[in-house]
Amino acid sequence: MNILYDERLDGALPKVDKAALLAEMRAALPDLEILHEAEDLRPYECDGLSAYRSTPMLVVLPEHVEQVQTLLRLCHRMQVPVVARGAGTGLSGGALPLEQGVLLVMARFKRILEVNPEGRYARVQPGVRNLAISLAAAPHGLYYAPDPSSQIACSIGGNVAENAGGVHCLKYGLTVHNLLKVDIITVDGERLTLGSDALDSPGFDLLALFTGSEGMLGVVVEVTVKLLPKPQVAKVLMASFDDVEKAGRAVGDIIAEGIIPGGLEMMDNLSIRAAEDFIHAGYPVDAAAILLCELDGVESDVHEDCELVDAVLRKAGATDVRLARDEDERARFWAGRKNAFPAVGRISPDYYCMDGTIPRRELPRVLNGIAELSEEHGLRVANVFHAGDGNMHPLILFDANVPGELERAEALGGKILELCVAVGGSITGEHGVGREKINQMCAQFNAEELTLFHAVKAAFDPQGLLNPGKNIPTLHRCAEFGAMHIHHGQLPFPELERF
Amino acid sequence: MNILYDERLDGALPKVDKAALLAEMRAALPDLEILHEAEDLRPYECDGLSAYRSTPMLVVLPEHVEQVQTLLRLCHRMQVPVVARGAGTGLSGGALPLEQGVLLVMARFKRILEVNPEGRYARVQPGVRNLAISLAAAPHGLYYAPDPSSQIACSIGGNVAENAGGVHCLKYGLTVHNLLKVDIITVDGERLTLGSDALDSPGFDLLALFTGSEGMLGVVVEVTVKLLPKPQVAKVLMASFDDVEKAGRAVGDIIAEGIIPGGLEMMDNLSIRAAEDFIHAGYPVDAAAILLCELDGVESDVHEDCELVDAVLRKAGATDVRLARDEDERARFWAGRKNAFPAVGRISPDYYCMDGTIPRRELPRVLNGIAELSEEHGLRVANVFHAGDGNMHPLILFDANVPGELERAEALGGKILELCVAVGGSITGEHGVGREKINQMCAQFNAEELTLFHAVKAAFDPQGLLNPGKNIPTLHRCAEFGAMHIHHGQLPFPELERF
Repeated sequence: MNILYDERLDGALPKVDKAALLAEMRAALPDLEILHEAEDLRPYECDGLSAYRSTPMLVVLPEHVEQVQTLLRLCHRMQVPVVARGAGTGLSGGALPLEQGVLLVMARFKRILEVNPEGRYARVQPGVRNLAISLAAAPHGLYYAPDPSSQIACSIGGNVAENAGGVHCLKYGLTVHNLLKVDIITVDGERLTLGSDALDSPGFDLLALFTGSEGMLGVVVEVTVKLLPKPQVAKVLMASFDDVEKAGRAVGDIIAEGIIPGGLEMMDNLSIRAAEDFIHAGYPVDAAAILLCELDGVESDVHEDCELVDAVLRKAGATDVRLARDEDERARFWAGRKNAFPAVGRISPDYYCMDGTIPRRELPRVLNGIAELSEEHGLRVANVFHAGDGNMHPLILFDANVPGELERAEALGGKILELCVAVGGSITGEHGVGREKINQMCAQFNAEELTLFHAVKAAFDPQGLLNPGKNIPTLHRCAEFGAMHIHHGQLPFPELERF
Repeated sequence: MNILYDERLDGALPKVDKAALLAEMRAALPDLEILHEAEDLRPYECDGLSAYRSTPMLVVLPEHVEQVQTLLRLCHRMQVPVVARGAGTGLSGGALPLEQGVLLVMARFKRILEVNPEGRYARVQPGVRNLAISLAAAPHGLYYAPDPSSQIACSIGGNVAENAGGVHCLKYGLTVHNLLKVDIITVDGERLTLGSDALDSPGFDLLALFTGSEGMLGVVVEVTVKLLPKPQVAKVLMASFDDVEKAGRAVGDIIAEGIIPGGLEMMDNLSIRAAEDFIHAGYPVDAAAILLCELDGVESDVHEDCELVDAVLRKAGATDVRLARDEDERARFWAGRKNAFPAVGRISPDYYCMDGTIPRRELPRVLNGIAELSEEHGLRVANVFHAGDGNMHPLILFDANVPGELERAEALGGKILELCVAVGGSITGEHGVGREKINQMCAQFNAEELTLFHAVKAAFDPQGLLNPGKNIPTLHRCAEFGAMHIHHGQLPFPELERF
């Protein structure tokens, strides 16, 4: 799969004199590692969304905050765009570089500065891996809750930029809910602290505004995350269904019982079979859908909830409900789910991963809608998702070598996201907008809302030098893309009537 | 207590021709109720912070969203400042009117539009009382979690504007954590939806930015709140201490055990005696401090936690620990705490309520610091606070009729807030900055941070017509107020060394 980067996006940016920039940079930052030869730049052409590629003009790898400040001041003075990059695991092209810009790689900021068990927080540099924080906190019985599937590789700075989620965010929240403070460098090189050690901070909530802003408002140089006590016990139930809609309804039934599971995940038959072939998780390959429901907390509580959820699932029409009998089986049940994406990669030359969210009650209708759209476009769709919080990851299977399939996959993806918006959901749950979904933002928001986004962006970065062409589309772009705006599902959506 | 409104704050605003405004308003909005006679305006001179008073030029009481839109468009065109007001229970003068401005009273927007038990949300108008939401949700076993002490009277629109907290926000979060969507009218009359029905929303998180923005970014016309299932059981433990510091340390010990209480409150001897005299809650009047710890959840879990907390409290030096034996006693324990402010009002002609937050671990040090400052200024301080989340409400007792006491109270209050900032906390936990703490914002933030706040404000309201003179001080004002900036406690704070 290979969609070239859309040059129109940075058409408005000034041309940069690479030689002059390089000379100034070397003079101002003699110790900074700078990559500028073609072969050195290649590894940085894309992030986790390899469909979009672009060669950065320069790649810089600073090691000290002062270098980041000097670099940003220099780029600001010379009007050079800057794209920050963490571990490069993002799935929406948020760290896609610019040919006329500097790629600022924060991977060397790897130090854990403080783990404070009494204050229940950890203070870390942005390049620290998500999982490394939990490992450092483990001796104190604590952990960092958000757990994106890439947690072994992704960095906390990128998690902040994308407001990353994970399997457990229904109960424990997204990144934004697990932060105390973020230190940033602004476009003109100032260091600012957003948030505080206290629960609330006076003035406007710039910490929440910054979280998920996809590198458009500043560069993260330090993060203070909340740590939580590890649950005493965690149990997983796996329920099989002969019908996808029934599984969808069961999700609502569990929540309606007043239970908030640690994780509540759904997979359809295509995903089940792919995962089972790959991982041998013990999934029922004939089931139309399975639900995985994790319950965590203190022993007695978890035991009680397991019984209750078991009953709810059976009442909702589950053909079988199994409690993972030990830690091994529990780990295997999760391994199947967490490897569902690569598993699907084994049964199709290419796949396109969507990330829509919908109100939970719309699950059955949207699943039906996706099935119809899939048939219409002649492409298979594997459904894997965080059912509890309505965050869907439909995977569109296609072969880029078959003429027309790539275009059909893109068209189908667009239709699925429009369906999500039409039922009151959104075009991204946890992967971010990045470069990938920038057109769909025109469907999600109206002109007034986009104008407000641009005004907020200008408050931080008036010249638009930080990660231009991502996250927030220009009104011009939306006009070109066509009049597909649906205002939070309140305006008529022609497709919707059918489902 | 009577501090006149500081006229410098709105000195920059243009003069308004009241007669012309009234005429235009009546022409554009024939059905709108407008108050403009002196005696009609008097009830609107202040909000819950009666120390600050100012007579609004006009008071308007719209009943429909379209009226709010037309009104804001008109005021925008005529460059008239607008202050929105909910129930007027705020404690920081956030709804203090302007003599050259319109006071927009949202009290008539009282309809509960939808209670959706399946989606676990309620959609309400901004004038709906906080407690009314929980009452409407009760038949479904649900409730709205944030519970400010004024919950019987305060409105949800005001809660959004101030990001209100309450006794249970340690476990259940502030207002911002319990919202899905807010519909606002912008300064130029546009209706926008911030947030979505889904857990996350693409683009910048304007919902979080708006929450707690104290009426400076727009006017709330509809709020969609999350509803939670009511805990099966709630139990309260009351622990007595012969030493305030020991009580402060016990708070950290409970949290360190991995327990998150539904509420964890502390009162010192002066507050205990005042509350006991007033409410007869059964408090130990000889104790130096008490802690009230509520544990809620499922039966077995709560039972286990009660035993654990009891042991932790005794180990921390509690002289007595009592479990409320029934619902009656539990309600009495809480009634004492919730009426602590009026109780203190009975033993002093005037009191000044502070609202600082501090990192939990600093509790003992700050309590000592307050005691020393209290002695130094010759004024008694009663300490009542949300200990679990480090949100303190020291009440400074004074008599405005004794010459010099008011000034000493203000000076002491300022010192206490500076102490909070110096240990890494903040000048407000849940009451907001409003008019009251605008000078202390100069201590909390540096010039770059304040400039960023102003830039964000300008993104929504370039002419500064919405609630000017509140929340974010001008740099000019900070310069006049004096160089007292302490950057998040990282710079030296001369007072701090002593405590």
